[in-house]
Amino acid sequence: MVSSLDFFFNPQSVAVVGASRNPAKVGYALLRNLKLFYRGRLYPINPHADEILGLKCYPNLKSVPDDIDVAVIAVPAPKVLDVAEDAGQKGVKGLIVISGGFKEVGPEGAKLESRLVEIIKKYGMRLIGPNCVGVYVPKTGMNTLFLPPEKQGFPKHGFIAFISQSGAFGSAVLDWAAMRGIGISKFVSYGNKADVSDDELLYYFRDDPDTKVILMYIECVEDGRKFFRALRGVTPYKPVVILKSGRTEAGARAAASHTGALAGSDVVYNAAFKQAGVVRAYGMEDLFDIAIALGLQPPARGDRVAVLTVGGGSGVMAADALSDLGLKVPRLSSNTIEKLRRVLLPIASPYNPIDVTGSATDEHLVEAVEILLRSNEVDVIMWLPYYITPGITGELNKKFLDRVRKVMKELDYVVPIVGVATGGKYTAKYAKEAEDMGIPMYLSPERAAKAIKALVSYGQWLKRVGTYEEYVEKYRKEVGI
Amino acid sequence: MVSSLDFFFNPQSVAVVGASRNPAKVGYALLRNLKLFYRGRLYPINPHADEILGLKCYPNLKSVPDDIDVAVIAVPAPKVLDVAEDAGQKGVKGLIVISGGFKEVGPEGAKLESRLVEIIKKYGMRLIGPNCVGVYVPKTGMNTLFLPPEKQGFPKHGFIAFISQSGAFGSAVLDWAAMRGIGISKFVSYGNKADVSDDELLYYFRDDPDTKVILMYIECVEDGRKFFRALRGVTPYKPVVILKSGRTEAGARAAASHTGALAGSDVVYNAAFKQAGVVRAYGMEDLFDIAIALGLQPPARGDRVAVLTVGGGSGVMAADALSDLGLKVPRLSSNTIEKLRRVLLPIASPYNPIDVTGSATDEHLVEAVEILLRSNEVDVIMWLPYYITPGITGELNKKFLDRVRKVMKELDYVVPIVGVATGGKYTAKYAKEAEDMGIPMYLSPERAAKAIKALVSYGQWLKRVGTYEEYVEKYRKEVGI
Repeated sequence: MVSSLDFFFNPQSVAVVGASRNPAKVGYALLRNLKLFYRGRLYPINPHADEILGLKCYPNLKSVPDDIDVAVIAVPAPKVLDVAEDAGQKGVKGLIVISGGFKEVGPEGAKLESRLVEIIKKYGMRLIGPNCVGVYVPKTGMNTLFLPPEKQGFPKHGFIAFISQSGAFGSAVLDWAAMRGIGISKFVSYGNKADVSDDELLYYFRDDPDTKVILMYIECVEDGRKFFRALRGVTPYKPVVILKSGRTEAGARAAASHTGALAGSDVVYNAAFKQAGVVRAYGMEDLFDIAIALGLQPPARGDRVAVLTVGGGSGVMAADALSDLGLKVPRLSSNTIEKLRRVLLPIASPYNPIDVTGSATDEHLVEAVEILLRSNEVDVIMWLPYYITPGITGELNKKFLDRVRKVMKELDYVVPIVGVATGGKYTAKYAKEAEDMGIPMYLSPERAAKAIKALVSYGQWLKRVGTYEEYVEKYRKEVGI
Repeated sequence: MVSSLDFFFNPQSVAVVGASRNPAKVGYALLRNLKLFYRGRLYPINPHADEILGLKCYPNLKSVPDDIDVAVIAVPAPKVLDVAEDAGQKGVKGLIVISGGFKEVGPEGAKLESRLVEIIKKYGMRLIGPNCVGVYVPKTGMNTLFLPPEKQGFPKHGFIAFISQSGAFGSAVLDWAAMRGIGISKFVSYGNKADVSDDELLYYFRDDPDTKVILMYIECVEDGRKFFRALRGVTPYKPVVILKSGRTEAGARAAASHTGALAGSDVVYNAAFKQAGVVRAYGMEDLFDIAIALGLQPPARGDRVAVLTVGGGSGVMAADALSDLGLKVPRLSSNTIEKLRRVLLPIASPYNPIDVTGSATDEHLVEAVEILLRSNEVDVIMWLPYYITPGITGELNKKFLDRVRKVMKELDYVVPIVGVATGGKYTAKYAKEAEDMGIPMYLSPERAAKAIKALVSYGQWLKRVGTYEEYVEKYRKEVGI
């Protein structure tokens, strides 16, 4: 199902109105990034230039001898209305208005914004913005970010859709994601949300086959009822993780002066998020840590966690971190303990946390995970492999994951696996390998515990709304178990 | 003041008992790391070899034709007693017993450990371990870690001393610190703590001129009274940050099976830490985030925080994160607001958070920080420079810090500054530059807020025990303000 917003992310042709030859201008940076990334037809619009960056320039939209899907607009606010009129007459499908100077600057700007909305309605166009950074889609190269690649990193294609009310924060997050190797399916910064709004984007990403998890950074919501109806329509099928700021008195005060809108009581938001199955995050790292777990692993059927560790101290910290979040680290049955004892070293601890010790080999972890999976006594496994241990080899990830998949195929339930790899370069290399194979890996047990909490909460939600089995079936098919 | 433990960290000569030619053995790895790092005289001890790694080998300690400060021992537990006797007769000052098989394995091992302690007492030797990873000192190259540099990173010299009850966790943390560019003054993993204990190390690091902040990872403490007396004797002069695990029921259970000791009630620990001025951390990143702030900035005289940001959204998140931790983000006086308004852009927000906006230049941040410092209305400044912003130049850090130093020299109070830089490679480069200049920089406002909380708590503690002025005087002298 392709929504009416699809042309914004996968346009056949794009015009940049306000394209500039001056490298200090947004209109230059926009065109340069699109030229570098975008794979469709690209038209700079500038009445005073014949050519910019080697592309033929047109004086206005109407003079372009081609259909235009999206016009990206970076001219001063008062001129935007004329451009929008032009675009309407030309039959442009959508506008992305980067320019500021609208509702966010006061009553005069709000008037301009209302007139802009009238124009797009009149012509049946759609609008992202104004006062926004726009969209970034690695797969199609559609990219309206206006910072040069020398300063701003652009993440690769991945399964995370990210909607940000703040353009600056959104750009910084993409930059960080690029450095960290985290992929993005689609990014949208919609600024003042004069037309395209949260609820519509939520439905669009629910039906987007490239998106597995939807992330949002929001400060305020205009139409709460509409927004929460959309969340309720999306979360039974795809997880939505929200970082909502302006939660505290000081934060709300800051948000009011930033967006000009009141943030509303956080108690109300929190209750509504709970009733809509939203997973809440409390910072950027939190947001992406959770997204990676929800994208790579199935939701958990319950809250019993087994900790399988090579390092005793980290096992203790893991048990603390899980308990802090209200998750269970249950004692295992004597039957399971006996089975573990039989395959582990005499100095190992077969209780939960299961501490195979620093003298363990790959096989100890592989045998232990099979026993835990088959025990039917736990709902999630947190494993802490300590790749630098002398007895652990470079083959561990493959052996471990092969065994997990083999066993999981035979079971009528799924058990998500989340890993911890504390260490330096050698460790990071193998952690990345494990993550590429499908097991999310975190630097610390505290961060892994938060990710597990999200898998547990989302599993509870799916069970409540009755889509857990369907969701897990889909996951099984995707990964072939 | 040089404590009696100094020879462990700065030995003139080291013998490795159990040195091996077999690369799979700990006795090989130990010798190799010492040969790579250590700058004193090094003697492998092995009765069956003439030479290992190009070093002349001796059959036993007594046959070495030199004084020996430290004997590092990696032979099976039952043989350790004979080696200790030998060492005593040779006049060795201290033993680092890496070997396990003592108290941690049960009553038989505990008996061995008691006899080992009797021997070292008899000869007036000191002992780190047994069942430990030992010490790592970048400055002298003393290094008893037994993982090869191919797997384990070794951090550079820095101002953080780190004491770890867990050897595996300690090694993993050093490995991570090396990758992250975080420096260490001295690292100790003391395993079973049969002789050298927490309290003695605390006093040693208090008086160590290379150490500015003391970090500890502990699971249990044997002599609580002695430990807390030591903490109370150290924290008025140097901050101590403790990550104590086994805090929860599940964690305590795990700790008991890991170290064989009961972890004790966390309520008791928490109260004792508070009464001893300890800053508590809840994870590895937390531990080092806090250490960097305490090492680079002075403690705060109060809890009023100004947020100075280039990005509105991050300002909102900063206000939330600070409020979550009970810190104040106060409204500024109309006088200060007016002063800010005069130097900032018309679209800027001169309230707190002070949002200079993405259109700001270096000068806006520099002028604003001067006004905030002079206002006497805030005790900490959190700044969020957004280096990728078009108007911000590569000179910002220098200009900002020069102004801060110039103004701070004229004031009779100090205001710590903590930064946030969310982003990718370009941002990370400038964040590192700022940190090298003395401003701790964090990836997110949430992490910076935790660091600020530590500066506030530690300042409150120093005021309570009456050493705040003295501590700040020392800081001013060190950084030349």
